[in-house]
Amino acid sequence: MLVLITYDVNTETAAGRTRLRKVAKQCVNYGRRVQNSVFECLLDQAQSLLLKEKLSEIIDNEVDSLRFYYLGNNYETKVEHIGIERGIRADQTLIL
Amino acid sequence: MLVLITYDVNTETAAGRTRLRKVAKQCVNYGRRVQNSVFECLLDQAQSLLLKEKLSEIIDNEVDSLRFYYLGNNYETKVEHIGIERGIRADQTLIL
Repeated sequence: MLVLITYDVNTETAAGRTRLRKVAKQCVNYGRRVQNSVFECLLDQAQSLLLKEKLSEIIDNEVDSLRFYYLGNNYETKVEHIGIERGIRADQTLIL
Repeated sequence: MLVLITYDVNTETAAGRTRLRKVAKQCVNYGRRVQNSVFECLLDQAQSLLLKEKLSEIIDNEVDSLRFYYLGNNYETKVEHIGIERGIRADQTLIL
């Protein structure tokens, strides 16, 4: 299923930037970064729970927030993009 | 239906910050800002098309991007939040 993960952090502090990098590092293992703080990940139920647990441990609950949007398996018609493109689709394979 | 709108802009420039403010101004008329560049809007089909048109006119296609995620009417179980809360639910009425 497609899980959209959005992340809010004050990156004015070095600690905030470190947390952002750590969140991104976890997310890119499962999908792609479509915007600065928006990740699209293709996960099964177990991966979803595991990633949520990992990200919860990284963020500072007092100042940061994470949101998870569960878009299911038929997500192609549920997403629209306008403007500059970043990265590749989460389910797209790169042949090098 | 719930439409999630995510927005990416380089706010290092004054022009970028102005575009971000304009996008936010349009979106808050229809819902709430849940994270810095993430808006949840409750829209019908006509409103959705109108808002998309307005936002497309504001952004700079060369450097900015907008993404629309259509979460339908039964979205309550599709959204999860961790960390600091910002604003109120899109369908929540404030009684003052």
